[in-house]
Amino acid sequence: MRTLRREPTERTPVWLMRQAGRYLPEYAAVRRGHAFEDFCKRPDLSAQVTLEAQAILGVDAAILFADLPTILEPLGFTLTYDPGPVIGNPARSAADVDAVKEVEDTSALGFVYDTVRAVRKQLPADIPLLGFGGCPFTLASYAIEGGSSRHYEHTKRLMYGDPDRWHAFLGKIGRAVAVHLRRQLAEGCQAVQIFDSWAGALSPGDYRRFVLPHTKALVEAVRPHGPVINFLTGNPALLPALAECGADCVGLDWRVDLADGWATVGHDVAIQGNLDPTALYAPLPELKRQTAAVLEGAAGRPGHIFNLGHGLLPTHDAEAVKGLVKLVADLSAR
Amino acid sequence: MRTLRREPTERTPVWLMRQAGRYLPEYAAVRRGHAFEDFCKRPDLSAQVTLEAQAILGVDAAILFADLPTILEPLGFTLTYDPGPVIGNPARSAADVDAVKEVEDTSALGFVYDTVRAVRKQLPADIPLLGFGGCPFTLASYAIEGGSSRHYEHTKRLMYGDPDRWHAFLGKIGRAVAVHLRRQLAEGCQAVQIFDSWAGALSPGDYRRFVLPHTKALVEAVRPHGPVINFLTGNPALLPALAECGADCVGLDWRVDLADGWATVGHDVAIQGNLDPTALYAPLPELKRQTAAVLEGAAGRPGHIFNLGHGLLPTHDAEAVKGLVKLVADLSAR
Repeated sequence: MRTLRREPTERTPVWLMRQAGRYLPEYAAVRRGHAFEDFCKRPDLSAQVTLEAQAILGVDAAILFADLPTILEPLGFTLTYDPGPVIGNPARSAADVDAVKEVEDTSALGFVYDTVRAVRKQLPADIPLLGFGGCPFTLASYAIEGGSSRHYEHTKRLMYGDPDRWHAFLGKIGRAVAVHLRRQLAEGCQAVQIFDSWAGALSPGDYRRFVLPHTKALVEAVRPHGPVINFLTGNPALLPALAECGADCVGLDWRVDLADGWATVGHDVAIQGNLDPTALYAPLPELKRQTAAVLEGAAGRPGHIFNLGHGLLPTHDAEAVKGLVKLVADLSAR
Repeated sequence: MRTLRREPTERTPVWLMRQAGRYLPEYAAVRRGHAFEDFCKRPDLSAQVTLEAQAILGVDAAILFADLPTILEPLGFTLTYDPGPVIGNPARSAADVDAVKEVEDTSALGFVYDTVRAVRKQLPADIPLLGFGGCPFTLASYAIEGGSSRHYEHTKRLMYGDPDRWHAFLGKIGRAVAVHLRRQLAEGCQAVQIFDSWAGALSPGDYRRFVLPHTKALVEAVRPHGPVINFLTGNPALLPALAECGADCVGLDWRVDLADGWATVGHDVAIQGNLDPTALYAPLPELKRQTAAVLEGAAGRPGHIFNLGHGLLPTHDAEAVKGLVKLVADLSAR
């Protein structure tokens, strides 16, 4: 939390995207025997994997176990998994888009807030809990394509073909996410992270025109309630525009040098990142070299949270991940 | 060709990546009834689709219809399609990598050179024919993963875990591609394009350490024989390093503003790009707006070839593509 305020700390804090994930045998054991949608909606199980990942790795924050497209349900979409998210009623026509609901209350996602409370009850008081939400573009592309996508054909058809309807749609999504994140903060999260996992498919001009106003409005609506970390992956050329969203912290993926990325978003913002997740497949000396390079990029400037440049992968080795957390502590001790 | 030399022209030249592709009914008609591997190895059919695409669209170059992983066969890999390329014997162990052949002669790919000669015989003399090859990283990742990949786990294991063997492997690949491209130029191509389709998964540091020396060596080996266009997609932060490869022209994907991208690679190099391919799904006024924006980014400076930022897609509308070619001619007339 001090790092999010860019205050000096005795070492660089560290947490890892998707730290509660399949690479962790303890997670796999809890997950076994539950369909993913049921698992997400079981606060006892979600709380357990959230807490265990923090305790096992010894990282500086617990990250709420929740799934990004969940918010699409109160907006009027049906969500299943096969194994990735599948939207049963993707918004393809003007009427589909117009039918999307304005969400004033997200109590339908009570299982998420139950998880927040359950985690907060058991988590040590000095460990923050990070909430979790999607950015308007990424959620819109799920809702329009019906799942993940390679070329975002339908999304861009709406964006280019009917910009007024596009903006109305993203406004509704962004406001719903804001309600959801404020509620997570009210229920016990100390900060929230928002993910624009698919926005790397946009040119800088399109990001500014079609996405930035909505992500900015989302950040503005949430920030009075707690710090916001904004993570976008897949296109370093969007960083100058991303910086204008006004988040407390920008998450960098590994495609950019940390020093360059931080200079681009500005040193008046904290930064999170950005080791290439595949460095965890490397022998220890190489992992150490790359970890040191990330820390050197930050040059000891207050405001750097060590993280990967993307989520942990199922094929990662839990022992290597634990080793990384120790490595960051050792190498960054001041 | 004048644009590749950065000489002034009466309008901006245009050609389109994957212009001979499934979106084109004439291509689909020729392709029908042939397995992709047979189609690629039939010079009569490859020449036909190469020529037809140029003639139907009225673009300023014919682009050799060929597939990127073909070169892996003389290197010792087995290649089939399902529907994407599948390597039957991916290089996973040290012994696999050591067994890769040094290719001094690419006559095994005679069907490609037959296609070059067949096209050149029928193509108008004032239309250049562009040859086609893969960059060392992209080919290595096909050879190691056994096909396309999401996280390049095995590729990066070798790269980080055994850098000497990695460099030996990429050296062999790069030299084979150089032989193949020089032969294409000798048989009748006027310039060649090299594609690093997967290198966007690399950080700038990794690109410099593990890839740049090999792409640079490839460009140096080919350039005395004809101009080289170097295209990489997926990471604008690699452009400063890419510029050091020494190609005559750098292809930009749509993730970067053309003006920024050109400034980054330097105005002493020609540029190709970079309309978002999905702009072709937009209504005409929006397509026109985006096309004009790309041309404005080039600011009439000699050395800009109009292209998409990625290949044409099967769901594109052939009439829209033809319209785009005319639009570029109209909007860029000086």
